[in-house]
Amino acid sequence: MQMLRERILRDGKNLGNGILKVDGFINHQVDPELMDACGLEFSRRFAHVQATKILTAEISGIAPAITTGIHMGLPVVYARKQKPITMPDQVFLTLSPSHTKGRMVELIISPEYLAGGERVLIIDDFLATGATILGLVRLAQTAGAMIVGIGALIEKSFEGGRKMLAHLDVPIESLACIDSMEGERIIFGDCA
Amino acid sequence: MQMLRERILRDGKNLGNGILKVDGFINHQVDPELMDACGLEFSRRFAHVQATKILTAEISGIAPAITTGIHMGLPVVYARKQKPITMPDQVFLTLSPSHTKGRMVELIISPEYLAGGERVLIIDDFLATGATILGLVRLAQTAGAMIVGIGALIEKSFEGGRKMLAHLDVPIESLACIDSMEGERIIFGDCA
Repeated sequence: MQMLRERILRDGKNLGNGILKVDGFINHQVDPELMDACGLEFSRRFAHVQATKILTAEISGIAPAITTGIHMGLPVVYARKQKPITMPDQVFLTLSPSHTKGRMVELIISPEYLAGGERVLIIDDFLATGATILGLVRLAQTAGAMIVGIGALIEKSFEGGRKMLAHLDVPIESLACIDSMEGERIIFGDCA
Repeated sequence: MQMLRERILRDGKNLGNGILKVDGFINHQVDPELMDACGLEFSRRFAHVQATKILTAEISGIAPAITTGIHMGLPVVYARKQKPITMPDQVFLTLSPSHTKGRMVELIISPEYLAGGERVLIIDDFLATGATILGLVRLAQTAGAMIVGIGALIEKSFEGGRKMLAHLDVPIESLACIDSMEGERIIFGDCA
């Protein structure tokens, strides 16, 4: 998606060690119009998968998931990382390594909002190693739901997440794919 | 706002002790169309305040802040509760008591995205005691920004937050105001 790639080049920062800072338009400050355009693009790419629900993980996945939900007319569930007092005792819970926190985090979903038979479209900000998305896949499968598609704003192709998700045999759509972050550069490639 | 009040009555749950569970459409599962309608309503009510930025706190404030940002054409900053590795060493930080977590939480904003002279519209899911919103106010004022309005999806009028914010002398708009949650009931009142 041209608009997103251009924004990454303009406002993104390669911090080294494969860390891409996009705090100016996705992860801390959000550009709602860009997120809306990305949601529209996801809705176009996943129009055929007949999803019944969008699933993401707090925190940074929420913005693109919401705008996708607006354009697809679908509810959004975001997995929590801490169990709030409003959640029932029995929950779906899995552990997932957090890239940016350097430790395992919990991903928690209430069975109230993810039922067997749902057709789940996963939307997240990054597809890197695929670990967070695989955590969401485990939660959905535990609930008896079916994954029908995976969308990410930015894929770090060099971290291999797409291969980790290949066994799911669902469409994987990233709006900007980064092949390499050598030195200070950000090199885009084909998303495949 | 009629649509939101009806949804609270239909899907909200009074858990007792003043705790309103809205996990089915705001706090865990989100109804993006409802959030979009709420964003449109905020944009109408705050059209005159000439805001330059929307400020909220992760996590539950993000959805209404994003849809408000879409309708107002404004960037959204969400205060983080943990400092990510992409944030610079020097940050704006304040402590705020968390109602639902029963402890103090940090609210952190990078100076990169909140500058002196900004006209800040605060949007959050709940206005209860006003503590979180006052935390955001402190952060904005530390940055040299000016608060020009405060919007909440749901106000628990019986917790007195509106009084705590009165000294700011800015418009406070809540889309549904709850006067009382005695027993299992949820009683709406005027927002004032």
